[in-house]
Amino acid sequence: MRYGLWYWPEIQGRGEFIRLPLEAAGIAYVECGRVEGADALIANMAQHADAHGPFAPPYLEMDGMVIAQVANILQFLGDHHQVGATSIADRLWLNQLQLTIADMVTEVHNVHHPLDVSLTYEAQKDAARSVAKAFREQRLPKFLGHFERAAQGGMGEWLLDHHWTYVDTSLFQLVEGLRYMFPKRMAAIESDYPGVIRIHDLVADLPGIRAYLKSDRRLPFNQDGIFRHYPELDAA
Amino acid sequence: MRYGLWYWPEIQGRGEFIRLPLEAAGIAYVECGRVEGADALIANMAQHADAHGPFAPPYLEMDGMVIAQVANILQFLGDHHQVGATSIADRLWLNQLQLTIADMVTEVHNVHHPLDVSLTYEAQKDAARSVAKAFREQRLPKFLGHFERAAQGGMGEWLLDHHWTYVDTSLFQLVEGLRYMFPKRMAAIESDYPGVIRIHDLVADLPGIRAYLKSDRRLPFNQDGIFRHYPELDAA
Repeated sequence: MRYGLWYWPEIQGRGEFIRLPLEAAGIAYVECGRVEGADALIANMAQHADAHGPFAPPYLEMDGMVIAQVANILQFLGDHHQVGATSIADRLWLNQLQLTIADMVTEVHNVHHPLDVSLTYEAQKDAARSVAKAFREQRLPKFLGHFERAAQGGMGEWLLDHHWTYVDTSLFQLVEGLRYMFPKRMAAIESDYPGVIRIHDLVADLPGIRAYLKSDRRLPFNQDGIFRHYPELDAA
Repeated sequence: MRYGLWYWPEIQGRGEFIRLPLEAAGIAYVECGRVEGADALIANMAQHADAHGPFAPPYLEMDGMVIAQVANILQFLGDHHQVGATSIADRLWLNQLQLTIADMVTEVHNVHHPLDVSLTYEAQKDAARSVAKAFREQRLPKFLGHFERAAQGGMGEWLLDHHWTYVDTSLFQLVEGLRYMFPKRMAAIESDYPGVIRIHDLVADLPGIRAYLKSDRRLPFNQDGIFRHYPELDAA
């Protein structure tokens, strides 16, 4: 059995948080949205709507069952493919961290779409400028400081002991996205978060991730995803 | 052992999603933030910061351990107090639904604080008006439609079979909050969501919830919580 991963075909988006542990652990999956296109994704979502369907992509499909919500999918993969935790306390801690990453990702999206997700960035540029300032100056250091304490607080070089988990790969993606979106700001502050950067670098060096990042399966960041680079929203 | 629930003392907020299943199931807990005050909450958070601490309240404290993030706490309570699901598939479905409720709650907060969470509503009133319109007209029906399909798709009168779970109590709170925040809009559309309203009413009628709603432990909604009633943000 191979997992079917359904997500928008043209962006990394939230799908990337699922792809990374799949790639790092060598778990077989089909990128259904890219193979079949966005219309097929919309049709597939409609087909699941009356059962236990997703509110939005990404979702995994397997044996007729659907699992949606990034943190939920990751917890499932963690339990079934040894990319999570085994003890109850560690499982709770990983899920807690992942949910805090999800909160930050939502705030990142809100930076360029503060007023209406159905409108373009250009239609809400002025509001975006003021949200971006608050995000860069207050929220970004607050979130990164939290993840830094998590990175310093483990027993080994990873967040948990001596093996990577899905939260390490999520932290990698967060750093990648923030560097793309706020290059000036990240250059100015990232040395304050050596533990976070250590985990980013360790993930980048995993054999499965090295191969993935060189492949055409890793889409480049772009102006349709969650992390978008608008120079006017960045500042040191 | 009693759980310590830490949250801001003056509001329902996200803490309410934890209180409701505790009250419905008769699980003993101490409302630490209300007993000891907001300063004690801040001090307690600081004390946990270097270990597996919370990013924000609410969190549960027990045996020196801390669990944060609403969906994470609820999944824990679900597993340990029979207020969740037993099968893997149902557990995933409940968590998925709860995370979608969490997404909606985040959008609700964003309605009155679209630009900067550290400023007052009054400082971002104009932006709030435009976010509120998009929320009322597009997001509210989209989310409620999703929960309606979930409510219609179960095997019994509850979301899962014939026993309430923590997602039923969360759905109750969502309806309560939306009715408080958008009375005109909810009066205009809520008959489109009979399954959601059925679950709201069933939860309201649980003995533990009936007693709780009459007690002074249930704070009234107010203008400091997540659901806030600003008449200028409501319309049918």
